[in-house]
Amino acid sequence: VSRVLDALASVGPLDAEAMAAASDHLDRLTKPPGSLGRLEELVVWLAGVTGSVEAPVDRPVVVVAAADHGVALAHRVSAYPSDVTAQMVANFLAGGAAISALAGLADADLVVLDAGVASPIPSSQPKPRTRFIRAAVARGTRDFTVEPAMTGDEVDRALEAGFRAADDEIERGANVVALGDMGIGNTTAASAIVAGLTARPVREVTGRGTGLDDAGWEHKVAVIEGALEVNRRGSREPLEVLATVGGLEIAALVGMIAAAAARRVPVVLDGFITSASALIACELNPTLAPRLLAAHRSVEPGHSIVLERLGLRPLLDLDMRLGEGTGAALALVMLTAAARLRDEMATFESAGVSGHGRGEPAGSPG
Amino acid sequence: VSRVLDALASVGPLDAEAMAAASDHLDRLTKPPGSLGRLEELVVWLAGVTGSVEAPVDRPVVVVAAADHGVALAHRVSAYPSDVTAQMVANFLAGGAAISALAGLADADLVVLDAGVASPIPSSQPKPRTRFIRAAVARGTRDFTVEPAMTGDEVDRALEAGFRAADDEIERGANVVALGDMGIGNTTAASAIVAGLTARPVREVTGRGTGLDDAGWEHKVAVIEGALEVNRRGSREPLEVLATVGGLEIAALVGMIAAAAARRVPVVLDGFITSASALIACELNPTLAPRLLAAHRSVEPGHSIVLERLGLRPLLDLDMRLGEGTGAALALVMLTAAARLRDEMATFESAGVSGHGRGEPAGSPG
Repeated sequence: VSRVLDALASVGPLDAEAMAAASDHLDRLTKPPGSLGRLEELVVWLAGVTGSVEAPVDRPVVVVAAADHGVALAHRVSAYPSDVTAQMVANFLAGGAAISALAGLADADLVVLDAGVASPIPSSQPKPRTRFIRAAVARGTRDFTVEPAMTGDEVDRALEAGFRAADDEIERGANVVALGDMGIGNTTAASAIVAGLTARPVREVTGRGTGLDDAGWEHKVAVIEGALEVNRRGSREPLEVLATVGGLEIAALVGMIAAAAARRVPVVLDGFITSASALIACELNPTLAPRLLAAHRSVEPGHSIVLERLGLRPLLDLDMRLGEGTGAALALVMLTAAARLRDEMATFESAGVSGHGRGEPAGSPG
Repeated sequence: VSRVLDALASVGPLDAEAMAAASDHLDRLTKPPGSLGRLEELVVWLAGVTGSVEAPVDRPVVVVAAADHGVALAHRVSAYPSDVTAQMVANFLAGGAAISALAGLADADLVVLDAGVASPIPSSQPKPRTRFIRAAVARGTRDFTVEPAMTGDEVDRALEAGFRAADDEIERGANVVALGDMGIGNTTAASAIVAGLTARPVREVTGRGTGLDDAGWEHKVAVIEGALEVNRRGSREPLEVLATVGGLEIAALVGMIAAAAARRVPVVLDGFITSASALIACELNPTLAPRLLAAHRSVEPGHSIVLERLGLRPLLDLDMRLGEGTGAALALVMLTAAARLRDEMATFESAGVSGHGRGEPAGSPG
């Protein structure tokens, strides 16, 4: 685990010089200054993360970490049975999932990491541009209402598996990493992490996941409150919270964030689960947060709490709550849009277009 | 003009049967019901507009209407000189504008219609997948602070030019039409239209356009208030408001909306200008509004007023205020995403994935 922690510790601030150069470049393009709004912010952000105004984002990869949760095997905290985790991993590899379609839209490779799926994953030939990494640390976590979800060693191995997966993709040429998750019960784990690290009440953090009714939601809240009680050790140490109430895929996602951030590769978060992982990473090194792009605002209430804590404003707000990296894949397309504008637009000079204000200062009416 | 008005009058409600079938289809796909949020709404909307659950959106076209405004030639209502309209049309054709890059991203053809640009447009060979239609009705409108912007005949010819442009594109195979605008001074015209048709105060409707400062904004408000005073005839008849304080490109956009809506082709609005055109079309036939997709929420305050009036909720909110169809092009990508999910995702049955609730009703915790 030491290389994961070393990587996290090595992450420094955004490159202010590159950001200023990107802003200057944008203001030379044939449009009123700032009129492309958040797409312009993305151009500046890309420069800040990578240190380059021309950083390409033409080799995106979506990495989805999957694992099961003891709490879901033992309690009714999800609208779906735990078998669905393995079934959905098979669906990812066969190309039939939502993220399969949206990774295709984003022209991204799809990498699925098994960090601890409980049921056997039906073996099938992955479809093109889809890779499967078998790195299961355990067959799901333990039931964290009675004992810690993971041992320290299990956390270390999951962190390392995620780190290696992202690092390998970057070695292969990936220049932007979008994160996704799959794990029945993982909004329960993420809610427990966020409540544990922020000290916000469990009922404020907890949502309906894939579709709980009122009674199911009350039960989920009680389960999380019980888990935090059982596991209370007076510590808000992030890796300890991760071990006690987290998940194997959540640990793997922390490792991925560490690998990408340390190599100055832009990271696109998806929804609640990936953002809970980001919260852990940023508690370990707060300098890291500005390197993360929040793709969208999930319906899960805990997601907004995390985003506020990390100082991130989500790009999209489409009432999505699926996970898998689906929101992140849509944000990849927006990032591609930003890079195309940056690279393809003419300047006022090159296109022979008059600037604003007939030579008067910006903002004055011409 | 009668065929434009006939087309508008012919537009009926969305196809409820196709929408129900689309919802059923979505609920069979491997995801929790409704978890793809607004992307699912887009799938249902596409079915409602076209009458088909399988309606393709693989031949999108962005049609940008351009024209100049007498009010901008006579008064300082924009941060840019009117010459920029012609210069930007040339930039569209040469591929150097923001919409050039984003139409490319959306894999869309780009059609630029000159409905009344004042300055000569430098002739150049349009880049591939870009077409130019010379249909200038006049060299810009008249200064509507002293007389009506257009004669009835000019309005008719601009409506017809837009209608024909969209109709021709649909004949060529376009299956979704995204609208854009270019015209220095056209937020002034759009603000006047919206204030005229909604009776909202001019200062609530009027924004800073391409970048006015406080004094410039106050002047713009005064110009619009003066224009509405001069042109007041006790009428809120939409075509009369269009003629008195509108623009040639705005009239052309009304014609495009009529052509596409009448042929049940989905229409994607961009920002404030295209939405002001939609307001005119929907005042003539309110049944038309649900056939329009509001791509994004522009920074212009009048845009939100129009969207509310039309009952449209914008898909994106990216602080954009450029026009040209840039927001609409991004929405085209979201529409493509929705169609891919609809067409590519596996069903629970085909993928062998367990449904929610182990056979219990939807929403109960499994």
